[in-house]
Amino acid sequence: MLLIADNLQITNPVIATAIDKLDPAPIQEMVKNCESAGAQAIDINPGPLTRDPEKKMTFLVEAVQSVSRLPLLLDTSNPKAMEAGLMAAINHPEPPIINGFSLEPQKLEYILPLTKKYHTRIIGYLLYPNSNVPIDEADCISVLLDLYGQFQAAGLENDQLIIDPVVAPVIWEDGIRHNISILSVMRQLPDLLGFSVKTIAGISNLTTGKIPKDKKQILEQSFLPVLASSGLSLALLNVFHSQTTQTARACEALLTPGIFSWATL
Amino acid sequence: MLLIADNLQITNPVIATAIDKLDPAPIQEMVKNCESAGAQAIDINPGPLTRDPEKKMTFLVEAVQSVSRLPLLLDTSNPKAMEAGLMAAINHPEPPIINGFSLEPQKLEYILPLTKKYHTRIIGYLLYPNSNVPIDEADCISVLLDLYGQFQAAGLENDQLIIDPVVAPVIWEDGIRHNISILSVMRQLPDLLGFSVKTIAGISNLTTGKIPKDKKQILEQSFLPVLASSGLSLALLNVFHSQTTQTARACEALLTPGIFSWATL
Repeated sequence: MLLIADNLQITNPVIATAIDKLDPAPIQEMVKNCESAGAQAIDINPGPLTRDPEKKMTFLVEAVQSVSRLPLLLDTSNPKAMEAGLMAAINHPEPPIINGFSLEPQKLEYILPLTKKYHTRIIGYLLYPNSNVPIDEADCISVLLDLYGQFQAAGLENDQLIIDPVVAPVIWEDGIRHNISILSVMRQLPDLLGFSVKTIAGISNLTTGKIPKDKKQILEQSFLPVLASSGLSLALLNVFHSQTTQTARACEALLTPGIFSWATL
Repeated sequence: MLLIADNLQITNPVIATAIDKLDPAPIQEMVKNCESAGAQAIDINPGPLTRDPEKKMTFLVEAVQSVSRLPLLLDTSNPKAMEAGLMAAINHPEPPIINGFSLEPQKLEYILPLTKKYHTRIIGYLLYPNSNVPIDEADCISVLLDLYGQFQAAGLENDQLIIDPVVAPVIWEDGIRHNISILSVMRQLPDLLGFSVKTIAGISNLTTGKIPKDKKQILEQSFLPVLASSGLSLALLNVFHSQTTQTARACEALLTPGIFSWATL
């Protein structure tokens, strides 16, 4: 399981200000700290970037690349920002991952085609066209098959797809039911799609909302191993939650056949 | 998932001395502390009790019952001690669980028949007759089917059986491989046996041996959710590891459909 930092995001006021002022220092500091904390990839999430999308995304990608060679995920719903980010990362040792598309018509029309143009991978979210989450297993599977149909219709290869089954907040009325459904769907993915598809999940989503910090920690730490045992490939998380990253490493050790070394935890 | 305290055991010198001197006070204190810490049942593990097995087991069961009405598991390989414990608990609101039998000939001959005689439940360990653990999934399944055959031959009803797939220490050469096998077997149990069988696992076994305390904690806390998501019914653990018991409660909340209340964590 690869650990991807979700820390570089617009909801952090320090990052928001740095993006606004095109000041690379706070971005660079954040990325270096994420790498020290064990991040194996960086999700760049500047939000929809309504003003100067190209300029800001280019600035962000360049700022990150100036201090780190970690793989990048470009996490914006703005197609102009996405394409600018892809261009800025054109010489990166690994093509960035587009994060992401769903059945939402705008994303199918403007984001998905960038995957073919830039020979990259893309994350597909199991969401209805209106961005609601399907609750029951059958509905999740139906969305999955529609999404895969769109992915294929865009002329892409199977290994370019990463599925995000979307972890729902526990405080949502149907959040737990949805999360139980996706565990089952994740286990069935190879059968449903006919190949072994990689998966990603945003762990921080689980505890979105007003929940005391210690309970957030224990919920994150409890759900990550459950996702890991359902085959999760990539975990998007706050890498400064050291208990959670330690848990991720423990899962890796516990679920990987071979001689175990707890010394690496 | 029910939490069963594994704390009342002969390997704790305080308990060993109390059993030796037939002094109920330390036993009673331990049991009360386990109950306060969230134990929902108590495993009474005095070892093989080579001297005065009946007297000591009777003393133990009476000491525990004098301060707690929690369900009991009688955890000894000594058939005389086991029968004395069953007799001592004859008026307990719930018949104790016999912990346990395996394909070991002594256990099949002397422990298993007590289940029918005392109308109780029994834990069956997935172990070879020589008490070695099967490593690969196919071997675990073969042991399971043999064990169930013996259980049926003893004239018992399906709901009297609880399966312990045996968590192996991570420091064993094949420990991780074995533990990965049992996760798969646990998921297949309803299909393999044709009914929904309860399961139990000893969480502390995972970290037996020389591993630093903080790493033991993170390993326990990481593997418990994995077992929970494979359907574990009963977790035998050190209930004084509060992080682990919190994790167990979080798993219960995260894996049970219905409206979640994090306030109960």
